[in-house]
Amino acid sequence: MRRIRVLGVGMGPQHVTPEVAEALRSVDYVLAAQKSSQDGLLEARREICRVHGDVPLVAVPDPERDRDAPRDYPRAVADWHEARVAAYEQVLLERPGDVAFLVWGDPSLYDSTIRIVESIHARGRAQVEYDVLPGISAVQLLAARHRIVLHEVGRPLHVTTSRLLREALETGQDNIAVLLNARLELDGLEDWQIWWGANLGTPDEALVAGRVGDVLAEIDTARAKAKEAAGWVMDIYLLRRVS
Amino acid sequence: MRRIRVLGVGMGPQHVTPEVAEALRSVDYVLAAQKSSQDGLLEARREICRVHGDVPLVAVPDPERDRDAPRDYPRAVADWHEARVAAYEQVLLERPGDVAFLVWGDPSLYDSTIRIVESIHARGRAQVEYDVLPGISAVQLLAARHRIVLHEVGRPLHVTTSRLLREALETGQDNIAVLLNARLELDGLEDWQIWWGANLGTPDEALVAGRVGDVLAEIDTARAKAKEAAGWVMDIYLLRRVS
Repeated sequence: MRRIRVLGVGMGPQHVTPEVAEALRSVDYVLAAQKSSQDGLLEARREICRVHGDVPLVAVPDPERDRDAPRDYPRAVADWHEARVAAYEQVLLERPGDVAFLVWGDPSLYDSTIRIVESIHARGRAQVEYDVLPGISAVQLLAARHRIVLHEVGRPLHVTTSRLLREALETGQDNIAVLLNARLELDGLEDWQIWWGANLGTPDEALVAGRVGDVLAEIDTARAKAKEAAGWVMDIYLLRRVS
Repeated sequence: MRRIRVLGVGMGPQHVTPEVAEALRSVDYVLAAQKSSQDGLLEARREICRVHGDVPLVAVPDPERDRDAPRDYPRAVADWHEARVAAYEQVLLERPGDVAFLVWGDPSLYDSTIRIVESIHARGRAQVEYDVLPGISAVQLLAARHRIVLHEVGRPLHVTTSRLLREALETGQDNIAVLLNARLELDGLEDWQIWWGANLGTPDEALVAGRVGDVLAEIDTARAKAKEAAGWVMDIYLLRRVS
């Protein structure tokens, strides 16, 4: 039985754990999505492959997501998912051997790789078994950089996406890590505390912390600057109501 | 200025990242709490020190927490915190050099090390600066072992403690990672899905997943067995309402 290994590589080569390095050396090649917008991440994966046993990387062009159909979002995502699964499966059928996916951050948070591998497994055309190894996530690196614990003593942490921030606030959440931002929409939260970071772990990393009302302009500037420097921006923040 | 480095070592030597290994090699010694109940974790820290530059480990007896005063819990925790800070500070004053703390899991989740180091810094007797590096957390390893994403597509993850589980349920949370269990109290949640793990990353690791009503007895047995084998048990679970 062939093996697919889903490997969390954290926020860069500095986070590749010994067990991930060993797993990477055990495979015949790495499968990676080639996205026109994030060449930097593909390059980082190539570098990790080079350092850990010079494992070949097969770049698979990422299918375009149909962004003209906003009213049927789940369907568009499902179609996109199927197209990605089919693209990877095609490579697996053509090229034998054990395979790894290198997941930026951690496979368990807002990442689709496990679901893709489950789908490949379920379709049954490529006979595979699979395992998962964890990696450092962006939210952990954000906390480390700001030298904070992600919650007050013994209190909860709510992790959600920008899309669902208002829903979280409505249910009374007062300590929220927010991922997948298109933009920051923090109206009415001026008195909350924010710890923000962009492109964490890369040379273009940016960090801002303070009272939302005081630092929002600074964040906007830092975000634009990171995007200009890297060609892309991924940001994340922790938002806490100050009592 | 002396440096204190707060280093997340994940759930064992297999998770020590290259940046943490490098930071560990840079210090003169490691400070670690000596708890009578968790000798295994101290031994694991010694092993990590040995592998990464044979850094000396100074074990500091952990002050006893006053468990006879349940009605003044915050005060008992505060006193305990101060006693720990004083104990570490004493070593810092007696023994020069840069120092690391090796945090099991990640310093940003339900760990007191950052707060201890902040207190040492604030007291000002030992002149120190400090930084933090992330590590793989138990909740990530739980997800990896069960090969799951911690949330439904695009949905939130609520992270809390056993103590506050009912509070989370009352605000409508339906996807909850629960840490710091004394025991599992899942009455009324029989139809939810649970992914449970104990002593993750150690030889006594135990995993159970299924419908709560079906697997609760199995979890109790596995928990008791892990505790007997290791002398201690730390468990964690993800709880999700199935729609």
